[in-house]
Amino acid sequence: MLDLLANKWSALALGALEGGPQRFGSLRTRLQGISPKVLTQTLRRLEEHGLVDRTVYPAVPLHVEYALTALGRDACEPLAALRTWVEHNIGRFPVGAGVA
Amino acid sequence: MLDLLANKWSALALGALEGGPQRFGSLRTRLQGISPKVLTQTLRRLEEHGLVDRTVYPAVPLHVEYALTALGRDACEPLAALRTWVEHNIGRFPVGAGVA
Repeated sequence: MLDLLANKWSALALGALEGGPQRFGSLRTRLQGISPKVLTQTLRRLEEHGLVDRTVYPAVPLHVEYALTALGRDACEPLAALRTWVEHNIGRFPVGAGVA
Repeated sequence: MLDLLANKWSALALGALEGGPQRFGSLRTRLQGISPKVLTQTLRRLEEHGLVDRTVYPAVPLHVEYALTALGRDACEPLAALRTWVEHNIGRFPVGAGVA
């Protein structure tokens, strides 16, 4: 589980979904630099682990939305604390140590 | 930085060093399943990012110890919270969702 959560794209995807359900396209825009393939894999793993729900809307055109489950919402707390710690301490890291 | 910290082996290596300086061998024992190559890469990245100090003792045989820096010790707090959350919520994850 730590493997899943202690993963940059999982952490950022869950964080992006804190604002409410979203489609694949808007998640891809928000998670800058993620490829469609990695986003698909990340969302599938989050879904398999019960952190994200995937709903298919049979409209025309068909569309899919991703939303946090209760478990996913709870996981956001320690992940947000980690993200906040990084943001608050970014200046303490050696210059050129990479910010991503 | 989230990339570095939101990484299973980084999180576990920092956690293992909370108990005090350690040699490569004892870290490898504590981080079950890690290969020497991945442990070497993980420790090097942690060192480059100022989270871990590496001290070479010119004894015979020469030995190397790894220890948390002040920054590394501070990073342990949000990481420990994430690990604790996983441990407390492991039962809520779907069976067979992988525990690592």
